[in-house]
Amino acid sequence: MLKTHPRPLVADSAVLARCIDECGVCAATCTVCADASLAEDDVRMLARCLRLCLDCADSCVATGRIVSRQTDRDPATQLAALEACRAACGACADECERHAQHHEHCRLCAEECRRCERACDELLAALES
Amino acid sequence: MLKTHPRPLVADSAVLARCIDECGVCAATCTVCADASLAEDDVRMLARCLRLCLDCADSCVATGRIVSRQTDRDPATQLAALEACRAACGACADECERHAQHHEHCRLCAEECRRCERACDELLAALES
Amino acid sequence: MLKTHPRPLVADSAVLARCIDECGVCAATCTVCADASLAEDDVRMLARCLRLCLDCADSCVATGRIVSRQTDRDPATQLAALEACRAACGACADECERHAQHHEHCRLCAEECRRCERACDELLAALES
Amino acid sequence: MLKTHPRPLVADSAVLARCIDECGVCAATCTVCADASLAEDDVRMLARCLRLCLDCADSCVATGRIVSRQTDRDPATQLAALEACRAACGACADECERHAQHHEHCRLCAEECRRCERACDELLAALES
Repeated sequence: MLKTHPRPLVADSAVLARCIDECGVCAATCTVCADASLAEDDVRMLARCLRLCLDCADSCVATGRIVSRQTDRDPATQLAALEACRAACGACADECERHAQHHEHCRLCAEECRRCERACDELLAALES
Repeated sequence: MLKTHPRPLVADSAVLARCIDECGVCAATCTVCADASLAEDDVRMLARCLRLCLDCADSCVATGRIVSRQTDRDPATQLAALEACRAACGACADECERHAQHHEHCRLCAEECRRCERACDELLAALES
Repeated sequence: MLKTHPRPLVADSAVLARCIDECGVCAATCTVCADASLAEDDVRMLARCLRLCLDCADSCVATGRIVSRQTDRDPATQLAALEACRAACGACADECERHAQHHEHCRLCAEECRRCERACDELLAALES
Repeated sequence: MLKTHPRPLVADSAVLARCIDECGVCAATCTVCADASLAEDDVRMLARCLRLCLDCADSCVATGRIVSRQTDRDPATQLAALEACRAACGACADECERHAQHHEHCRLCAEECRRCERACDELLAALES
């Protein structure tokens, strides 16, 4: 889809596409992990996980959209959005990893958050170079 | 991810997963199509396309989240969200199809909107049965 | 802000502005109610409240955006979005009312959901007339 | 609404409430400004304005939600979200100010983006102290 855009892409198309895709997958994964946590018997132990999953989903949706746009961008806005998404993914991964042995949804969510964190890192590196 | 949820899924897992996935892909596709339209020389001809892509992206994000949640759902809320998403996808596809011969991003976007519209239809049918 | 739009508004400006405003306030209120419920000792009793608050916030964000746009609208998309928002507000209000005596955030959230539900009703009536 | 939360607020309630409110108002204002720009005869001159309004609306929605949550927060996630929102508001205000003499919606949008930028600044200062 990005290759049909009339403007030059803001970064290498593979790096850009990976970041957009991971933001979408991570937002969906965190939404399910939050909801699954809400249904667990030990939801009180999972409160921080649930909350950080909601933050991460919100940040991924906004950042995925902001880096999808190629027309007349503001570089500082895109960089700050990627930094915010990287922070949200990192915090959510840290917390989900603590519950990974007891809850498979937390284990999968932590893995996805790490993938999205790396994809944001790689796009940040490409945009800053 | 859905299979790790502690509650029974609200519908057949394949039908549910397809709808969630298509909402995510359609939201991303419409975001790019709106931005690509903005960069085209004939943006004034594409105003309706751009606007309906924004509506469709917003509806897909909300609906994808609402049907992702399995815990203590309200059936009427999920059905109405799917109806809204189906309407937004259908309207966006109709408009993008009118520009499909001139703009490859519109052609691809129309195809994706039709896929998401069908996925919403199938989940609606599964939930109403 | 709506009065500066170059196109005729899709409905009476007061009815339209009230619906947009209530969608914004209701989204914010439901986000806080969900988070407050997560911090309560009886979070397991509040699981349905928390979940429906998340649905309602998502629906209000999408619907507020879709009805804010005046340019080249698709009437069926706007009507279906309003129906979805009304359903989400009504379900969330019903559930929050059940906890209104024990939790002030639920009482306030139920009241706001009812205001937003009415504002959607009024805009639906104006658009359908 | 914030005062009903069972946890201590992450910052002074007036500073916090102002930031949440401005994020909501700014998201709504930018959504209308983008749509109004799309309907203007000189939409091609307003492409950057339209695009930055979409970015700003997305960032405001995500940030308003992330700072609304008081339960078990990750400080770095909240700070990075506020930095991202401040950047998006600043860039959108800069661009809208360039069109303020020709388009009243751009003038009002620039003013609102500056208010939201300041509210983010003030909450950042409160959280970092």
